[in-house]
Amino acid sequence: MAQERIPDEMIAVVLHAYEGPGGLRVERRPVPSPGRDEVLVKMAASPINPSDLAVLRGRYGFRPDPPFVPGGEGSGTVVAVGPGAMGRYFQGSRVACLWDGRRDGAWAQYMVASTKGGVLPLSDSVSLERGATSVINPLTASAFIEITKKGGHKAIVLSAAASSLGRMVNRLASGEGIEVINVVRRDTQVELLRQQGASIVLNSSDSGFDDALRDACHQHDAHLAFDAVAGELTARLLRALPSNSKVTVFSALSFEPAQTPPDQLIFENKCVDGFWLGPFIASRNLVQTMLTWRRAQKLVTTDLRTEIRAEYPLEDAPRAVEEYVSQMTGGKCLLRPNG
Amino acid sequence: MAQERIPDEMIAVVLHAYEGPGGLRVERRPVPSPGRDEVLVKMAASPINPSDLAVLRGRYGFRPDPPFVPGGEGSGTVVAVGPGAMGRYFQGSRVACLWDGRRDGAWAQYMVASTKGGVLPLSDSVSLERGATSVINPLTASAFIEITKKGGHKAIVLSAAASSLGRMVNRLASGEGIEVINVVRRDTQVELLRQQGASIVLNSSDSGFDDALRDACHQHDAHLAFDAVAGELTARLLRALPSNSKVTVFSALSFEPAQTPPDQLIFENKCVDGFWLGPFIASRNLVQTMLTWRRAQKLVTTDLRTEIRAEYPLEDAPRAVEEYVSQMTGGKCLLRPNG
Repeated sequence: MAQERIPDEMIAVVLHAYEGPGGLRVERRPVPSPGRDEVLVKMAASPINPSDLAVLRGRYGFRPDPPFVPGGEGSGTVVAVGPGAMGRYFQGSRVACLWDGRRDGAWAQYMVASTKGGVLPLSDSVSLERGATSVINPLTASAFIEITKKGGHKAIVLSAAASSLGRMVNRLASGEGIEVINVVRRDTQVELLRQQGASIVLNSSDSGFDDALRDACHQHDAHLAFDAVAGELTARLLRALPSNSKVTVFSALSFEPAQTPPDQLIFENKCVDGFWLGPFIASRNLVQTMLTWRRAQKLVTTDLRTEIRAEYPLEDAPRAVEEYVSQMTGGKCLLRPNG
Repeated sequence: MAQERIPDEMIAVVLHAYEGPGGLRVERRPVPSPGRDEVLVKMAASPINPSDLAVLRGRYGFRPDPPFVPGGEGSGTVVAVGPGAMGRYFQGSRVACLWDGRRDGAWAQYMVASTKGGVLPLSDSVSLERGATSVINPLTASAFIEITKKGGHKAIVLSAAASSLGRMVNRLASGEGIEVINVVRRDTQVELLRQQGASIVLNSSDSGFDDALRDACHQHDAHLAFDAVAGELTARLLRALPSNSKVTVFSALSFEPAQTPPDQLIFENKCVDGFWLGPFIASRNLVQTMLTWRRAQKLVTTDLRTEIRAEYPLEDAPRAVEEYVSQMTGGKCLLRPNG
């Protein structure tokens, strides 16, 4: 195979200030070079995820000094490798990339990714388009199911349940016999989840929501909630759950602090913690990670599939982000860095 | 010993509505009768605790239908016993009582207490006055030290640290070589704790508080906070603590929901839970409880002593509560039900 020529410059989406989508510019940047234990990936596709929106506001777990290229995950082909044993293994491979915040992110024509957890081989059956969304949501959904089973839970509560992630969790849970009490905030989302076969879907905008949620939690003995919203919803989840329950916050779509009523903590023995995919993966050994990854790869066209509603060239990324912000359910927006 | 005559009626402080101190009336009530596994205690003294204020507002873990007698703990002499093996053991004994919310509380001339954890024998060396405050704060302080040691912590953060409980925790921690990072909100409280020998006391009203707290937490490797305030302070404690830390809320002096920043939960692996003395005691076996109790009894005139700043006849209870609310540090207010 002839070595593909790597240009000196590329198109990239650059965040200049932590101002949300308004801080983005599309620019020419030098193509980065892979260092030790790193590879250079020519990007095929990269989605816009809720976590990217947090990055743009400076509210994510890593917060590089602007200007930098955001983009939490994507797919592409390894076109160059730095020194280190693992790099050669990936040379020429189709891969999925996970951004770790140390170098630039995935919203560019080329991305440097670490061979230590930042790059994962795509199965032959997985297209580059599918592969672009095969890391963050599929591994998060898999982690939720793993945590649920490990804790011996037969039912969970899930907020923002009509999201791509939420629908994945529902499909995986269904296969495991785990009941999901879905919480959404619009009737169209209720409809969407019901069409997918979800049996319990509650709309937090309904007047009877709190009572209905409490009834469902007690009836199904749900003691664990995964909360993507935070703010006041965390308090409502806590109050609805029976004694000895936990809310695990994994996103903050409300951009508000989680409200935690002291009486629920003190007298009901409830607690609130957080989930972040990166450290969860890092806490496991390579074999566990590869097993989970291979299982997830097998499901990316079924239980772990992502609906794509629109594709955009990189030049239109700022507009794509704005459109995603205005409507976050109903499929992902995918950037196409190399056409 | 001649059996003391038990009158038909008594003076009691009665809460008529969950309106705080304003809902209290002093009234004549029938003297209650002890049932199975219960004893009748002629009360000598009973303090006003922060948890009593929560009860008066309907914000405590148990919430009897008004009218009822509040009062979380007290001391006295067992003058009658109901059926059951344990009752006879207590007949005529000087005891401390812990209210469990099922019968009336301690702010009365007589109280029925359960022999299953609601009544504890006072050592000969402990006066009825000391005994009145020998359960809630001493056992809570002991529990905090036990939790701290069990978690391998060498330093803790403590809010509302100038309270009676806070000063007990400081004295116990000092003996165990545990560093306490004390958080108060007034300079007079800083002074009070310094006089007692506390080395780290931070005033949350100071402009440099957050930085100073963060520096102290990192310097002393404090990963655990006991928070009596909740509200915005919980968020400030969470942000100041290093990654992988926990805030345990045990009271809510702010009467506000604990603010829990999602980034601290998700990206810093921090969590928030609660502590309640009753279930903590109930979760341990009788031998453990009696060992802790005997150790605590030995310390009630030293490390676990409570300063008493004023005593009131039962008739003046509503005024005593108002005075306590207006100034919660500087010693306890003690009610004297039988003069």
